[in-house]
Amino acid sequence: MAGLTKLEKLSRGLLKLVERCNSFILPGSSRPECHTFLVHSCQVGLIQPDVWKHLINYPDVFVISGSDELTSRKSLSIKDTFKTANERTAAVAKVLEDLRQKDVFLSLRGWRNETYDIRHTFAEVPLLAIERSGTGLFGTVEYGVHINGYCHKDGQLMMWVGRRSKTKQTYPGLLDNMCAGGLSSGLGVRECAIKECQEEASVPMEMFSGLHQTGCISYIYEDERGIFPECEFTFDMLLPETFIPVNADGEVDHFELMSMEKIKEMIIDEEFKPNSALVIMDFMIRHGLITTENEPNLCYLIEMMHIPLQKIYSTGSGF
Amino acid sequence: MAGLTKLEKLSRGLLKLVERCNSFILPGSSRPECHTFLVHSCQVGLIQPDVWKHLINYPDVFVISGSDELTSRKSLSIKDTFKTANERTAAVAKVLEDLRQKDVFLSLRGWRNETYDIRHTFAEVPLLAIERSGTGLFGTVEYGVHINGYCHKDGQLMMWVGRRSKTKQTYPGLLDNMCAGGLSSGLGVRECAIKECQEEASVPMEMFSGLHQTGCISYIYEDERGIFPECEFTFDMLLPETFIPVNADGEVDHFELMSMEKIKEMIIDEEFKPNSALVIMDFMIRHGLITTENEPNLCYLIEMMHIPLQKIYSTGSGF
Repeated sequence: MAGLTKLEKLSRGLLKLVERCNSFILPGSSRPECHTFLVHSCQVGLIQPDVWKHLINYPDVFVISGSDELTSRKSLSIKDTFKTANERTAAVAKVLEDLRQKDVFLSLRGWRNETYDIRHTFAEVPLLAIERSGTGLFGTVEYGVHINGYCHKDGQLMMWVGRRSKTKQTYPGLLDNMCAGGLSSGLGVRECAIKECQEEASVPMEMFSGLHQTGCISYIYEDERGIFPECEFTFDMLLPETFIPVNADGEVDHFELMSMEKIKEMIIDEEFKPNSALVIMDFMIRHGLITTENEPNLCYLIEMMHIPLQKIYSTGSGF
Repeated sequence: MAGLTKLEKLSRGLLKLVERCNSFILPGSSRPECHTFLVHSCQVGLIQPDVWKHLINYPDVFVISGSDELTSRKSLSIKDTFKTANERTAAVAKVLEDLRQKDVFLSLRGWRNETYDIRHTFAEVPLLAIERSGTGLFGTVEYGVHINGYCHKDGQLMMWVGRRSKTKQTYPGLLDNMCAGGLSSGLGVRECAIKECQEEASVPMEMFSGLHQTGCISYIYEDERGIFPECEFTFDMLLPETFIPVNADGEVDHFELMSMEKIKEMIIDEEFKPNSALVIMDFMIRHGLITTENEPNLCYLIEMMHIPLQKIYSTGSGF
């Protein structure tokens, strides 16, 4: 990127970032070949052909419920004999345990013994829960929380970022928000944010009055582990200048207090976990650091971090 | 809405609001019958059938350039003989002036002598400019600015809202943001925000260091004046407790300093211009006043105020 100004480099970096986080909706993805995953006739996910061919071997659990003549797209449904969320959860868990034993999917090697709730939309009740390492196989929406921990030092806005442990399953060694985590089954959003702040950064209880939610970002990507439509609830936390985060769960190698200029450079250099960079981009936009005065693609960046995941499976709008 | 709690009433009100602002993409709109509007083979708009039948009477300016067999959708293009933005602007202006003379469209009775730049995406150069009262006929994306003027009074967050003049062409007598306005041809986004603050609220120059951009919202509706895909750049301005806005251009009847609780009630009662209510909803979300703890539909609300207008005409994704 020689010859480019700092602003041009950042602009290219941000464009690359939002497209990387949305690889599933860009040309060349598996999207046109994917089949749909239904519960109670409601679409809640997407299945890649390579995954499909294994899942159809479990006719006790799944039924192929239809096919779209226009697109050759088929649908896989959990059988209606499984009537409750608990029954569906148990049935799918058995399938995933079997596939894990057979070592069919890379993703299942990272078995977590932790489940994500699967809902039609976030406002609705969970239809089932799926083992965290297996949700990408079904392309179901995952929810999580990210906390921007920032402070003012000598009048300058600074942000605490963590360097992920080199032993983390996903994105080892990359930079991350001060705290972040997936929304496991049964956890509330704020409850999850507080838990992550405690475990990952040892934030003391009396500081949580300064933790406030600021909305969410959403995007959809695919990689070798599957399809990931993700919605991350974002939080800002203005920290006292004297506060220093200390990791308590071994997931963070160390923390650094960075200027926003330094963070921009780290985003350009792809030193950040992509969705965490997106969360910081959202922070910079909300705080007036990325504007139409310095970023020509502002509108496009904003819409690429607000992919309509709530409607994506309910309207048949291209998904 | 008797029997509902305050929170339930607000939740219903916000749902109604986002759906009203996006009437074009909901069932029952003219969307399936619309034709596309192209410049240089790029889609930049949508034309309702009732408008289409008039525009095709100007073969000197427009050419019907194709039809989609699957949907019976046709395309109207500005003839390639008009090579520059200025030439295209003049050609379309002549058509609109003629239609105005013939009094064919309600919308053109509100002729403004002010144009909006039409771009393929906001990052690109304008392809032409169209008289403000006529853009709805072509369904081109309009850009504007909205300023949330707020302060802290006795520790409470309060917001200045304006009551629109009863003589305004659009939404007379409704509540509005402290300042707002369309982005006329040639104006920069921040420049436009400052101009509106000066004209509508007499904000003095030295206060603009406190004006900061916070992103944008986008939505698409239709009404009797046409189709309106709109992107509004949002600004927050923390005001001194002593500042009192004074209107200078006759567009505001009077200003009121309201608590956020009062504003929520006014939104429920549909006392606000819809897109201004959406801007305040975005403010409340960013400032942690509407969260997953008090609003079950938060994710859906957020995606309904970030409709992908930049991609809407470039990917053929249902539009």
